[in-house]
Amino acid sequence: MTQQGIPEQMTVVVLDSYSGAEALRVEQRPVPKPGKDEVLVKIAASPINPSDLAVLTGHYGYKNLPPLIPGGEASGTVVAVGPGLMGRYFLGKQVACLSQGDTGVWAEYVVTTTKGGVFPLNKGVSLEQGAMSIINPLTASAFLQIIKQGGHKAIVLTAAASSVGQMIARSCQSAGIKVIRIVRRDAQVEMLKQRGSAIVLNSSDSDFCQRLHDICHQNQVHLALDAVAGSLTAQLLEALPPHSKVTVYGGLSEQAPQASLDQIIFQSKAIDGFWLVPWIEKKNLLQILLLWRRAQKLLGTDLKTEIRERYPFEDARQAVEDYQNHMTGGKVLLVPN
Amino acid sequence: MTQQGIPEQMTVVVLDSYSGAEALRVEQRPVPKPGKDEVLVKIAASPINPSDLAVLTGHYGYKNLPPLIPGGEASGTVVAVGPGLMGRYFLGKQVACLSQGDTGVWAEYVVTTTKGGVFPLNKGVSLEQGAMSIINPLTASAFLQIIKQGGHKAIVLTAAASSVGQMIARSCQSAGIKVIRIVRRDAQVEMLKQRGSAIVLNSSDSDFCQRLHDICHQNQVHLALDAVAGSLTAQLLEALPPHSKVTVYGGLSEQAPQASLDQIIFQSKAIDGFWLVPWIEKKNLLQILLLWRRAQKLLGTDLKTEIRERYPFEDARQAVEDYQNHMTGGKVLLVPN
Repeated sequence: MTQQGIPEQMTVVVLDSYSGAEALRVEQRPVPKPGKDEVLVKIAASPINPSDLAVLTGHYGYKNLPPLIPGGEASGTVVAVGPGLMGRYFLGKQVACLSQGDTGVWAEYVVTTTKGGVFPLNKGVSLEQGAMSIINPLTASAFLQIIKQGGHKAIVLTAAASSVGQMIARSCQSAGIKVIRIVRRDAQVEMLKQRGSAIVLNSSDSDFCQRLHDICHQNQVHLALDAVAGSLTAQLLEALPPHSKVTVYGGLSEQAPQASLDQIIFQSKAIDGFWLVPWIEKKNLLQILLLWRRAQKLLGTDLKTEIRERYPFEDARQAVEDYQNHMTGGKVLLVPN
Repeated sequence: MTQQGIPEQMTVVVLDSYSGAEALRVEQRPVPKPGKDEVLVKIAASPINPSDLAVLTGHYGYKNLPPLIPGGEASGTVVAVGPGLMGRYFLGKQVACLSQGDTGVWAEYVVTTTKGGVFPLNKGVSLEQGAMSIINPLTASAFLQIIKQGGHKAIVLTAAASSVGQMIARSCQSAGIKVIRIVRRDAQVEMLKQRGSAIVLNSSDSDFCQRLHDICHQNQVHLALDAVAGSLTAQLLEALPPHSKVTVYGGLSEQAPQASLDQIIFQSKAIDGFWLVPWIEKKNLLQILLLWRRAQKLLGTDLKTEIRERYPFEDARQAVEDYQNHMTGGKVLLVPN
């Protein structure tokens, strides 16, 4: 183990209560030391994802009590390792890493496990793209597997202008799967159409439900991926043909997914959910490595993310507010000073 | 074809609008004549099922415009047949029959198809038990298949004091599947316990959610069959372990099934529905006959129904109101004069 050139103290972002961006501040903490099968990553960049927003208000799947360090994924360089063979492999490498248990990655240094907490970046993948190479790319990869396993030739996708939405849609297109994209604003319709999307519907249009119904029936769509929930879930269920399913993977509306008795019983429709964590936990190490290598290769194309803005940790509050106000305008990155 | 002894006119029950029992009246109609592959059944008795209540308020899966003849199933004797081999087989037999398209069975005579609309009663099955031998018994049979195919060793069942609920529970018990029964009143708890049910919970109890949670986790229950919906669906989802499902097959609460974002996304839970009609439509004739024969044999035991009251067609309104007020007190039958 080496700790040469590593300071004693570091800056971390702390969430004081589940009250969103305004509960964010920075503080100084001791730099942690890696134990057995652990590595210390000097963080380069970390994106703000929708799942981070859920953490800030206590709506994520893990509910550690504040004060806590938020941040779900990041990139950096492995600068120290604990005992263990895998650690030696990672030493000096540029990596992507995931938050572990009650400790997020919005910190200058992060200790994480070599067993699924850290992944080597391909050569040619920048630290900034690498910072966003786990959660959204693997979510898109997971959905592509699910869609193929279900034999779907076409799907509906809500929040289609989001980073992960665009990844899912591009991945589907590359696999020959038609995507009916749903967005909330005309500007998003224009943006997606300029990028070559054939079918984009605005859920704010007065004829949205009828058009969605017609398109879903024409294309025999039986699956919708929904990151919005609330009343949109019921609109999706109503538009899809019998024996269809809405898979909810986000709650941008901050409302519970809605469904009528008629839809569930007599239209034979279903609601389920998707969360990346249990999906990955069901995979073995080889399956994860194959997914990871495939995703790394596609970071420049199907799984590319646009970056709109960079903020230092000290401005985490402003960064989150900026992201919340323009969620489909490209990613906001947090970077140590 | 013979029409000997069959009158020209008959009494039928008519629903004038989707406003429930008060929209019921009787009128005289011509007795219909069976066409090719059809039979004419002289009706003996017909139960009031929860699905009939849904028809009366326009909440069933088929939404024929009133005025319409309600009634989902009945028993009777085949008194005339149209051309076709199967018709000859049924002539003179005691049968159970299903409503067809826009014509229900609350009528003195009913024409139905030999292709899935009429089933011969076993010897020893009375016309009254036979009147209730399709919808609830096949629903219970369907759930037993679904439960076995899913590998479930234990399930939760709401509205467990209902006729179909008791059938489902007895069928499960006979197959060695544990049933956690949920009812709404202490009297129902007592009634089911007296009949040997081990685990009965009252959803009105203040500690209901905690007890249900504990029992579901102790017994590794991953499936709930829910005929109530509304907030009870969300309580079921919350109590079940991750990767569980609530299958909604009725809406006694008259409320849409509820589910939270947390339950659907982070707890990996799902909602789907069950309706007997599409379930049967997916079966071939041989599968249906095997189901039917098995169900007929069990009408005296697992699939037995208790009868509380009998009303003539003229009192259909009163009969429906009586049933609505005591839905778990045994079946109410409509019988021609």
